[in-house]
Amino acid sequence: MSYTVGIDLGGTRIKAVALDAAGAVLARANEDNGGADAAAWTVRIASILAAWRAELGADPTHIGICAPGLAGRDAVSIEFMPGRMEALQGHDWTRALAAPVPVRVLNDAHAALLGELAHGAARGASNAVLFTLGTGVGGAVLANGKLVRGAIGRAGHLGHISLDPNGAPGITRCPGPLEDAIGNHNLALRTGGRYHDTAALLAAVDTDPLAAEAWGRSVRALGAAIVSVINVLDPEIIVLGGGIAASGEALFSPLRAYLDAHEWRPGGHRVTVVPAALGDAAGALGAAYFAVHFGELT
Amino acid sequence: MSYTVGIDLGGTRIKAVALDAAGAVLARANEDNGGADAAAWTVRIASILAAWRAELGADPTHIGICAPGLAGRDAVSIEFMPGRMEALQGHDWTRALAAPVPVRVLNDAHAALLGELAHGAARGASNAVLFTLGTGVGGAVLANGKLVRGAIGRAGHLGHISLDPNGAPGITRCPGPLEDAIGNHNLALRTGGRYHDTAALLAAVDTDPLAAEAWGRSVRALGAAIVSVINVLDPEIIVLGGGIAASGEALFSPLRAYLDAHEWRPGGHRVTVVPAALGDAAGALGAAYFAVHFGELT
Repeated sequence: MSYTVGIDLGGTRIKAVALDAAGAVLARANEDNGGADAAAWTVRIASILAAWRAELGADPTHIGICAPGLAGRDAVSIEFMPGRMEALQGHDWTRALAAPVPVRVLNDAHAALLGELAHGAARGASNAVLFTLGTGVGGAVLANGKLVRGAIGRAGHLGHISLDPNGAPGITRCPGPLEDAIGNHNLALRTGGRYHDTAALLAAVDTDPLAAEAWGRSVRALGAAIVSVINVLDPEIIVLGGGIAASGEALFSPLRAYLDAHEWRPGGHRVTVVPAALGDAAGALGAAYFAVHFGELT
Repeated sequence: MSYTVGIDLGGTRIKAVALDAAGAVLARANEDNGGADAAAWTVRIASILAAWRAELGADPTHIGICAPGLAGRDAVSIEFMPGRMEALQGHDWTRALAAPVPVRVLNDAHAALLGELAHGAARGASNAVLFTLGTGVGGAVLANGKLVRGAIGRAGHLGHISLDPNGAPGITRCPGPLEDAIGNHNLALRTGGRYHDTAALLAAVDTDPLAAEAWGRSVRALGAAIVSVINVLDPEIIVLGGGIAASGEALFSPLRAYLDAHEWRPGGHRVTVVPAALGDAAGALGAAYFAVHFGELT
C-alpha cells in the first residue's frame, strides 16, 4: 500500500503518522524519544519505520521529520539547535536511517503550520501565520502558498518580535520579546513568584488583581505582535496554537477587544484569528505534508 | 523595437521609464501628475505612452503602474487609498488607457523593492525586505522569490509594526508604530517643535543633546523593528530607502551598534543591511519588472 510518513521528534517524545494518498491516517506512533543522542533517536525512528514497512507491505513514498531548531535550506538536517538537543545539528536523517527516499527535515513550528494547512484550521489558505504559545513562543509563516523558511531557516520566530526597543533582551538578544511577555518560561518572574503556569494564572484572574494585571499585559503584547504581523504579512488567517492558546475565551475574548481597537481594517476587512485544530498532532502531519509537497512549498 | 514600460504615479509627480529586453533604459519621463483626479493622471500617462509609441515604433509588450495604496490581488487597480489620492480607488488602468496589454498595478513601495531587486541593492535575493523611511514609513517583503502582497495587498506596511503594546495609535490604529518613532511627519511633535525634518535634526546631533536623544530613540525603534523582521522573515538582505536612509553613517553607524547588540546571529550569520541604490527611480523600474514577471512574482 502506498503511504507517506511524518515524524515529530521532540525533546521527550517521538510522534509519527503514516498517511494514505488521501491523507487518511493508517498508523500512529507516540513514544519516548529514547534519550538525548542522535543514535538513540535514530534507532527509535528506524524501528517505527520497520514496523510500518512490515504492516503496510512497502516502503513509504515520502518521509518528513520535524524537530526543534533551524533546518537547512536543503532540508537534509537541522543545522542550528544549540543548548537543547544539540545532537540534532547536522544529523543527516536520510543517511542515518538508510532511508529509501530523501528524508525532508523542517522546523517543528513550520511543520505545525503545514499540518494545520493540510488538515486543520488553515485549510485552503495561501497566506497564513501560526503562533505557538507555550513554554516559549514560536511560529511559522506561509506566504503565496509557500512556507517562508528564509535565508537560514530562522523565519517564523514570532516569539522574537520586539515590543520595546529598550527592553531586556530575550534568548536571541531581541529587546523586550513577545516570548518574555506571554511564554510560560518566565511567568513566575513576571508575577513575583506567585504563578508558575498560565493555567494557574487564568484560574485566578477573577479573584487576584495581580493575576488579572499580568494576564492583561500578556494579551496586549500578543495583540500588538498580531497587529504587526497583520500589517507586515497580511495573512488570510492567524492560527494560535500551543498550551496557552487552548485557554479558549480567557485568551480570545480580551484579544478580540484589543484587535477591535488596534487592527487596521481597510474597507472593514478583518483577519480571521482562530485556535489551532490539531493540537500536538500537527507537527507529524505537517512533516508528512512537507515531504510530499516539498517542490511546491519551497 | 520591443520594450516595457514602468510608471510611478505619486502625489505630485509621474515618473516613467521604457526599458528594452535587457533592462537598459530607452526613455524616461518625469513630470507633474496633472492634479488630483484620475482623468488628469490618465491623460498625462496616455500622452507619455503615445510619445514612446511614436518614438519606438511599437506598443510596449508590458506596462506596470505603481501608486500609493493597496492594490487588488488581480493587479487591475488600487483598491484602497483613503484620504490621499482617493481617485485611485478602483481606477482600472487597462481600461482607462485603452492599453494594448493588461496594465499591472501594484503598491509603490512594493515596486521600489522590485526595482532594487531587478537593478539595485537587492539583486539576486530570494528573501529581501525594504523599509522606506520618509514622511511616513512603508516597505515591502520578498519571500521565496515572490512579492508578498497578502490577502488584501496590505503586506509590507513596516511602518505599522508596533513597538509598544500600550503606545498611542498611529494612522492605522497600530499602537506605538515605527512610523511615529522615525517618520518625518511627526518629528516636530517628537522634539517639542524644535525640528521639522530629519536632515535638520541630524545636523544638530553633535551640538544639541535633545536632537541626539531624539535621533537615538528613532534609531533604536528602527533597530528593534529590523530585529523583529529578521526573526520573522529571515531575509538575506534588508534595504533602507527613502530620504532618511540617505543620511548615510548618521543612520548606519548607530544602527549597526544596535544590531550588534540585538540581532540573533546563529552560527555567526548576520543579515546584510544596506542603503537603497536607486533613489526615487526604483518605483518605475520595479513596476516594469512586475509587469514582465507577474506570473513568477505572484
